[in-house]
Amino acid sequence: MRNICMTVSYDGTAYNGFQTQPNQNTIQDVLEKAILALTGETIKVTSSGRTDAGVHARCQVINFYTASKIPVERWCMALNTLLPADIVVSGARLADDSFHSRRSAVQKTYRYTIRCGKHPDLFKRHFEFYHPTALRVEAMREGLAYIEGRHDFTSFCSVRSTKLSNIRTVYEARLECEPQDPILQSYAIHIYVTGNGFLYNMVRIIAGTLIQVGEGKRSGGAMLEILNARSRAKAGPTAMAHGLTLWEVLYDQDATIT
Amino acid sequence: MRNICMTVSYDGTAYNGFQTQPNQNTIQDVLEKAILALTGETIKVTSSGRTDAGVHARCQVINFYTASKIPVERWCMALNTLLPADIVVSGARLADDSFHSRRSAVQKTYRYTIRCGKHPDLFKRHFEFYHPTALRVEAMREGLAYIEGRHDFTSFCSVRSTKLSNIRTVYEARLECEPQDPILQSYAIHIYVTGNGFLYNMVRIIAGTLIQVGEGKRSGGAMLEILNARSRAKAGPTAMAHGLTLWEVLYDQDATIT
Repeated sequence: MRNICMTVSYDGTAYNGFQTQPNQNTIQDVLEKAILALTGETIKVTSSGRTDAGVHARCQVINFYTASKIPVERWCMALNTLLPADIVVSGARLADDSFHSRRSAVQKTYRYTIRCGKHPDLFKRHFEFYHPTALRVEAMREGLAYIEGRHDFTSFCSVRSTKLSNIRTVYEARLECEPQDPILQSYAIHIYVTGNGFLYNMVRIIAGTLIQVGEGKRSGGAMLEILNARSRAKAGPTAMAHGLTLWEVLYDQDATIT
Repeated sequence: MRNICMTVSYDGTAYNGFQTQPNQNTIQDVLEKAILALTGETIKVTSSGRTDAGVHARCQVINFYTASKIPVERWCMALNTLLPADIVVSGARLADDSFHSRRSAVQKTYRYTIRCGKHPDLFKRHFEFYHPTALRVEAMREGLAYIEGRHDFTSFCSVRSTKLSNIRTVYEARLECEPQDPILQSYAIHIYVTGNGFLYNMVRIIAGTLIQVGEGKRSGGAMLEILNARSRAKAGPTAMAHGLTLWEVLYDQDATIT
């Protein structure tokens, strides 16, 4: 059996998230069905992390074991022919037997995008959360800085989480602002969060709380108080799924999966 | 009656073009239905130019006459509430009685986008024509330059056109290349064509012919020969609709419609 590792992007709009669920349309199901059609094997793919319903991936990483003899450089094109237009395999390589797309990952980056101002960008409407009024970007940036470092992220974790520990390290949290579009009179704010692991809904709760900071309902410093409180009830709402994209996953060696 | 002028963007994917057609879903129908719902008036909107089925607009301009007393600054938000997410009115203003969104236009710009390389960008799949191999961009740029100026564009006009004269002036034709996306190993080529008017399928035939130049099937200089031949049969195929976007429309005065 060979361990094949792949980079996959998807538009999550039409899917009930990555992970297989009974009677749902998931990315995992569609990938496994394409692999079955290609190789005749019923396999299970592992991902670097589940993404929720409606969440996208620019660069998800998956791996699976196969007895197929298809050369690794052929997998990409062969699977893309079988996959719908909203899922693209952009890389495939052979991995060590020990490689596990989730456990071997050393860091992941998510991006949450908010478009704020007069009009949404309809060409990006499935990938940007639209906020009709301006946000106080500097206060958001200040608040975001507090989540960098090793913290107990209980406040920014869904109460439905079943993880034993809520301690994670955020290596970098930054906010980038695009220039205003003169026609739409709106601009995109991208929040990038890079960490060693993420709790259930973590980036969406951080984004939802930051939106309240941007609206002036909370100060930037409130992010620190919320973090210290270790209580989900202290944070803001979970921001909508469609603004979130799994941006990048890095591995110790062979970080570039081609 | 007041003459109201609006800037409208739309994702043309789900529509049978701008102009009303029997038993079809068109942008014009949807706009007129929203105006009917808002004002109770059955009106006809005029556009700066029809766009074909599947073609998008970043900045279409329309106008219509209304007896409604709704203040002009309220139209945008009122209509957007009634419109689907793939059509957005981004500006409304009062125009002179003589203003006509097509006849008063002094220049229009269309953009045709080709993504070429290993993988398509699935997040832009409805707005970029995907070409799986690299294109000779410099030859395309050379070929594109020949269409600048006042010419008989019969070669780049659908034989179904009913226009009396095929002479148009292209003020500017330029090609912009985005840097290669390292994950997708592909890049976008944007072809911008600005002119005083466009014939039926003109930009799509220019794009389809330039793709052949990019593929090495024709030289850049072939564009001049095709132009001089004044024969549709000499040009390449009509490029697919979804790569085309009506980018900008300018008027003599009040060029900025807010």
